[in-house]
Amino acid sequence: MFAMNPMVAGAIEPPIAEADGWLDGLVPDPARPILPMAQAVPAYPPPDDLLDDLAARIRRPGSSRYTAITGVPDLRAALAGHMQDEYGGVLQAANVLISAGCNQAFCLAISALAGPGDEVILPLPYYFNHQMWLDMQGIVARYLPFRPDRGGVPDPAEAALLIGPRTRAIVLVTPNNPTGTVYPPEVIAAFRDIARARGIALVLDETYKDFREEGGVPAHHLFGDPEWGETVIQLYSFSKVYCLTGHRVGSIIADPTFIARAAKIMDTLAICAPHTGQIAALYGLRNLDAWREANRRTMAARLDRVRAIFADRPGGFELAGAGAYFAYVRHPWPGRPAAEVARDLVREARVHCLPGSMFGPGQEDYLRLAFANLGEAALAALPERLAFANAAPSMAGSGHV
Amino acid sequence: MFAMNPMVAGAIEPPIAEADGWLDGLVPDPARPILPMAQAVPAYPPPDDLLDDLAARIRRPGSSRYTAITGVPDLRAALAGHMQDEYGGVLQAANVLISAGCNQAFCLAISALAGPGDEVILPLPYYFNHQMWLDMQGIVARYLPFRPDRGGVPDPAEAALLIGPRTRAIVLVTPNNPTGTVYPPEVIAAFRDIARARGIALVLDETYKDFREEGGVPAHHLFGDPEWGETVIQLYSFSKVYCLTGHRVGSIIADPTFIARAAKIMDTLAICAPHTGQIAALYGLRNLDAWREANRRTMAARLDRVRAIFADRPGGFELAGAGAYFAYVRHPWPGRPAAEVARDLVREARVHCLPGSMFGPGQEDYLRLAFANLGEAALAALPERLAFANAAPSMAGSGHV
Repeated sequence: MFAMNPMVAGAIEPPIAEADGWLDGLVPDPARPILPMAQAVPAYPPPDDLLDDLAARIRRPGSSRYTAITGVPDLRAALAGHMQDEYGGVLQAANVLISAGCNQAFCLAISALAGPGDEVILPLPYYFNHQMWLDMQGIVARYLPFRPDRGGVPDPAEAALLIGPRTRAIVLVTPNNPTGTVYPPEVIAAFRDIARARGIALVLDETYKDFREEGGVPAHHLFGDPEWGETVIQLYSFSKVYCLTGHRVGSIIADPTFIARAAKIMDTLAICAPHTGQIAALYGLRNLDAWREANRRTMAARLDRVRAIFADRPGGFELAGAGAYFAYVRHPWPGRPAAEVARDLVREARVHCLPGSMFGPGQEDYLRLAFANLGEAALAALPERLAFANAAPSMAGSGHV
Repeated sequence: MFAMNPMVAGAIEPPIAEADGWLDGLVPDPARPILPMAQAVPAYPPPDDLLDDLAARIRRPGSSRYTAITGVPDLRAALAGHMQDEYGGVLQAANVLISAGCNQAFCLAISALAGPGDEVILPLPYYFNHQMWLDMQGIVARYLPFRPDRGGVPDPAEAALLIGPRTRAIVLVTPNNPTGTVYPPEVIAAFRDIARARGIALVLDETYKDFREEGGVPAHHLFGDPEWGETVIQLYSFSKVYCLTGHRVGSIIADPTFIARAAKIMDTLAICAPHTGQIAALYGLRNLDAWREANRRTMAARLDRVRAIFADRPGGFELAGAGAYFAYVRHPWPGRPAAEVARDLVREARVHCLPGSMFGPGQEDYLRLAFANLGEAALAALPERLAFANAAPSMAGSGHV
């Protein structure tokens, strides 16, 4: 067999696929259907009018053709308008590149910034695919400590200490994946100030921005600064907000100079984002403001419910963070590897979630539960499941596997 | 402004976008509509039944969701069956990864094989996005000489001389982009033998395989070798064969060990190929054999027409290679940079094509014409356009720009 790239070999295996592997061979239990809280996927489908529009447009010959590398011009303009309405400032189509999802937006942005031996700062816990791309590219991740004492909000002062001559970016994910934590605007601004002062980029992944508890208030004021493009690179996804996970559409908003650089990579890697997904995303931006807001309220209510559930520490599980799509939960078996706990939890109690260990070092005591995946009824079953798990002798790690 | 990755800065700008830029400001000439022979795009739309099927399936909720990283299982199995029927041997779904187009398949395959400082062998002229990915990844391209004397078929013996300790792969594109040359099965086998003997991979890009002049005969016999997976990695695209360029669907066929490695990158970079594109590709494999064969015959007839046109050396243009989608043509202004010739050609004669210089060193005397883009009537206009160009004083490079 031929030799392969050791940097790819060294990256972890795809976490969602690993977690899905724990479902293999599980005998269905009618009394306890699986609560699917592993991969973040909206519990509801896209709205009918979006699908109707897409089904009609897909029959037009042009819809099967390549788009421009940076995306459909109307979609770029509409997204710039959407962000401008939400955040203030002046944003234009030239600031936008449409990618095939937000993972790809991250890969494009990071590779446009950094090469082998360069460094990127990630707060712990990180989003695993970010770490995987850095590993595969030979870029060194420098970690900001997890700060449960600050509600999971990383400390900008600690970031300043990590910046060296090879540092190229600070990456923030807010609302956070996996903790759900929403970073306050002043903290985001402090990170921006540090990045600007040190001549590095602030990469802000806002995949879950449309599910913040607080509606109608901007998540930050970065774009109000006329010089934002000198420092800020925003990443976004259409996957969750319009339930288009399989359509693969996301975006980068940045200075046009940087967009041109990212477009080189996009051309090489993908030519363009899928055309039909771009059509669907544009429909969403133009027609689904009310639908989006209704889903935000639904999710905020679900978050309240999650908080109420964990106020009683069901089965000894404690909430370490919650917001937008995710609850980050401390499990009641300290010292047990989180991957074993997560695997046993789905076998015993049919709660399918991800272990904290997938999100970086020092996370063995935690699990990520994507509560947004569950409807009301399924969510109501959660406390009983967790209590049941706690009562199961095998969960203590007696080595039954 | 923050610092950026010099390896990305060093790669060329996206060639198609550059060539499209030459159209800016062109006043339409009703007597000479543009002959669009730059980016390879089928001249005909996908068949109605494929679009009908897609429009119906897109309304099913599952169609908007993520697929597995490696793709829809039925599609993987169908593609394995298709290749097995065509090439012999035994291929299974486990040998298949579905990517978002063949550019992505190349990026995944190369990055799974090679990292910074490693080397990959490319025959000249190369497909520009291949070179761009190598440049951006810090992988060194070693060039096999262009052999017009062998009809554009590279010489395996020359490849053997380029292999060193850091060499990870030989890349072949057949039918070739840009020359159109179809490599004979025995030449492909000779490259495979060299790759195997030296413990490196043979990456075979067969994007244009369905448009070979010779129908019903396998392009090679690599998959008939039970140990093919030790050496061979095949790349393929659904873009041209089913007219799905905008849907972004391609594939890698390789040993399951390698597929797992490429899947790590796919997860990180894209999560999965677009679901709707995969639905369309599966429809194509299951239902469009006759349609595909009819298009192959159409394209073979068009190739005959191209040969007939150039037999007369219209305007002094000579055919250096032709097959599948492309004609590689020697222009009549030796010494003029090919990019200037291509730019002036679309301004003067409204023939839009790509300069040889986009495909590597030593290609200034050539132009790539994607004749597959043109219907019969448009193709019939080509000789007059080339003759007209030759008669235009500005084409001699008198510096009118």
